[in-house]
Amino acid sequence: MLLNCDLGESYGNWIMGMDAEVMPHIDQANIACGFHAGEPVTIDKTLALAARHGVSIGAHPAYPDLVGFGRRSMNLSDEELASTLRYQIAALDGMARCHGLELTYVKPHGALYNDMMASEHLREQLMHAVAGYHRPLTLMLQATPAAATHREQAAALGLAVMFEAFADRCYDDDGSLLARSKAGAVHDRVRMLAQVGQLCSDSSITTIGGHRLVLPVDTLCVHGDNLESVRAIEAIRALINET
Amino acid sequence: MLLNCDLGESYGNWIMGMDAEVMPHIDQANIACGFHAGEPVTIDKTLALAARHGVSIGAHPAYPDLVGFGRRSMNLSDEELASTLRYQIAALDGMARCHGLELTYVKPHGALYNDMMASEHLREQLMHAVAGYHRPLTLMLQATPAAATHREQAAALGLAVMFEAFADRCYDDDGSLLARSKAGAVHDRVRMLAQVGQLCSDSSITTIGGHRLVLPVDTLCVHGDNLESVRAIEAIRALINET
Amino acid sequence: MLLNCDLGESYGNWIMGMDAEVMPHIDQANIACGFHAGEPVTIDKTLALAARHGVSIGAHPAYPDLVGFGRRSMNLSDEELASTLRYQIAALDGMARCHGLELTYVKPHGALYNDMMASEHLREQLMHAVAGYHRPLTLMLQATPAAATHREQAAALGLAVMFEAFADRCYDDDGSLLARSKAGAVHDRVRMLAQVGQLCSDSSITTIGGHRLVLPVDTLCVHGDNLESVRAIEAIRALINET
Amino acid sequence: MLLNCDLGESYGNWIMGMDAEVMPHIDQANIACGFHAGEPVTIDKTLALAARHGVSIGAHPAYPDLVGFGRRSMNLSDEELASTLRYQIAALDGMARCHGLELTYVKPHGALYNDMMASEHLREQLMHAVAGYHRPLTLMLQATPAAATHREQAAALGLAVMFEAFADRCYDDDGSLLARSKAGAVHDRVRMLAQVGQLCSDSSITTIGGHRLVLPVDTLCVHGDNLESVRAIEAIRALINET
Repeated sequence: MLLNCDLGESYGNWIMGMDAEVMPHIDQANIACGFHAGEPVTIDKTLALAARHGVSIGAHPAYPDLVGFGRRSMNLSDEELASTLRYQIAALDGMARCHGLELTYVKPHGALYNDMMASEHLREQLMHAVAGYHRPLTLMLQATPAAATHREQAAALGLAVMFEAFADRCYDDDGSLLARSKAGAVHDRVRMLAQVGQLCSDSSITTIGGHRLVLPVDTLCVHGDNLESVRAIEAIRALINET
Repeated sequence: MLLNCDLGESYGNWIMGMDAEVMPHIDQANIACGFHAGEPVTIDKTLALAARHGVSIGAHPAYPDLVGFGRRSMNLSDEELASTLRYQIAALDGMARCHGLELTYVKPHGALYNDMMASEHLREQLMHAVAGYHRPLTLMLQATPAAATHREQAAALGLAVMFEAFADRCYDDDGSLLARSKAGAVHDRVRMLAQVGQLCSDSSITTIGGHRLVLPVDTLCVHGDNLESVRAIEAIRALINET
Repeated sequence: MLLNCDLGESYGNWIMGMDAEVMPHIDQANIACGFHAGEPVTIDKTLALAARHGVSIGAHPAYPDLVGFGRRSMNLSDEELASTLRYQIAALDGMARCHGLELTYVKPHGALYNDMMASEHLREQLMHAVAGYHRPLTLMLQATPAAATHREQAAALGLAVMFEAFADRCYDDDGSLLARSKAGAVHDRVRMLAQVGQLCSDSSITTIGGHRLVLPVDTLCVHGDNLESVRAIEAIRALINET
Repeated sequence: MLLNCDLGESYGNWIMGMDAEVMPHIDQANIACGFHAGEPVTIDKTLALAARHGVSIGAHPAYPDLVGFGRRSMNLSDEELASTLRYQIAALDGMARCHGLELTYVKPHGALYNDMMASEHLREQLMHAVAGYHRPLTLMLQATPAAATHREQAAALGLAVMFEAFADRCYDDDGSLLARSKAGAVHDRVRMLAQVGQLCSDSSITTIGGHRLVLPVDTLCVHGDNLESVRAIEAIRALINET
């Protein structure tokens, strides 16, 4: 079980996230590419940090919406989506190589991630775009009951995928995340570690309705916004190392 | 003698330059990287056009100043300059490969180009940045009497350079371009072709004061803004093919 | 019957629209506010042009999407929408006064306009935002069979409205514009003038299905993209002046 | 003696400054206008906060350089500078009125402020631009030995000015701020309060060389970046209230 985290989300003078504290504990850094967050200096600093800690590098592309932090759906044409992804991936790819790193995967950000999971058309276009990059990259998607289908769709395009689960989020009975507006949507420390432990032991989670759901999880998404979340990452890392 | 032209300078809905008309006649396309002009869709279209015509690809990075078209000097720190260049070069590099093309050179745009020629510190920083890219790229500079010095400075960093002259601009006696505000700064068709012919025959230009100046010119910068300038490119191309 | 046109849609070095040719023939200039097009210099130039020709000034606010020219729907929160509109309106308002002009109305641009017509929630939020400006402004909407309802909704907020029709677009039987993808969607010159003449004489249009539809049209939207469209404006102006 | 502070410098999801903690203690809020920081939602929130605490409102316009936080000099033309200022001032002006507030002054931000103090040409252009707004606004400048000259230059344009000093910065013997790179450039709490006390009692400061310098100070610039600086503001406020 790997740990991935969204990093490099500062922008110029505005600092976001405790990247230096998070990096030693994770396996995969999803690095903002400049469209929802990140700019060249932040990207270089984040890559240098990843290189120091031997962390794998993923591009974290987004809709072109800096002021909205990529959290608002935008109605891009297929052509716009493909080029917008390609540009962001290419920027990360070339910059990573300057640090002796190799970009290995792509995880869409925010509204683009949500739209990818919700819309078959967008997911297909996005898979096409990543598969069309000039060298192989893995696409990270959310682990859902449709994961096998998603893997097949990607394979048909010659694209490898990996699936992530969320350590601190409660799952609805259909395998989607319980909406944040609902009670119990975000786990406390105890439940979070229980969910991580269950995922590590038998690749399943227990839904809000008490059902056991098997999910093909390769990596856990963790957050590094503040000191509390860094402590949570350390606890998850310790638990995984034990198992 | 090669011909280079700034291309891909449209931005979304705003069209600039007759790229499709220019591309068949040139050897090198300096492609905007999104900071002064160009966005992902325009870059992809320009690369596709370059691939169709077998034109060499250069990154045309700029200060981050879309509203000013990269024509206003900005006081970037060394770190900001290095990362800003790296990002733009990387984006073009990766996107070019998706079209089966290889990025081979870098030509700074607008105020960044002028500042590079005027400021030794900026030129040195810029050379460092391009030399520090993860694979060799050639830097294009203006051919001036200082060209040999510039070549040595670059060589010390392991960086290759090439020099360009301007077909339609009159040169001052010191080898700089005559300011546009001065009479005779821009050649008419006859003088332009005479200048190109002289450069092709003995690598020299005749300055405003009537002096002959030898310049180590590898490539001529031409413009594709309108039909008239496309006709000029065609005439220059015909002249070069003859010689 | 008034004529309105979207103007000030250049951006820095990128020129769009024949504003100088259009301005003498229209009554109302919808001026881009910098979010989909326009920047401070362009806005000042457009206002100066409007002042010279005694044209009424409207703000033409948009989603914050420069690269997409405001033509892509974005999922803004109510708060984001309200502040985004207020900012754009205020910028135009204050700049107009510096030219001795008074901003009198607001016409949303592109995807924001379409979403306003399609979504009751967005229309309501938009009406709230315009009504909440510190002095009265009129909101321009598309004239449809629901116009009376829209007028009532606005009146309940103390907001005046006006309705526009499109001179060159064919209407579907339900009073919406026939999709551009369909045959006959855009009128030729003869049909366009016939539609204008009918609107001027009895405030009705004839739909694609041959039905007569009465629409409460205050103003006609015309376009100034190229010489042909400027000629069309002149012809419409001549026709209106006759009637 | 008034207290002014730069506020509203968050941008979308990126939070900067303890605005809510600062606002109760100051007299004048310099509000970012969206070009170096701030966007519509942040501006509205900052204005609402200012209204609640009865704080005067100033526009804090900047060079168009979001990624550089307006801290990098840019070589704008006179026309670009004038329109860029007008746009930002107008946006703040209209939005302030929606909160029942009146914009009363303009304080340039960052590199624009420094360039205004260093370059006579830029200062003159900036004074012209503010004087040319459609209603009177006061321009805030740094109090230096040239203050009387600056006041006369402004008066010739019909422009009122006010002068600010920095509570926590040590002054060089020529009345400029001691460069941050030099020892003693930033006062500790004791020296800061001593400088404020001296300014309140006889409108003078003591320079690094021990000389007494009279400066016509109307307002003190304070900072609200973190808890420590908020505590400093509280101490300064208490000191001023006593005197």
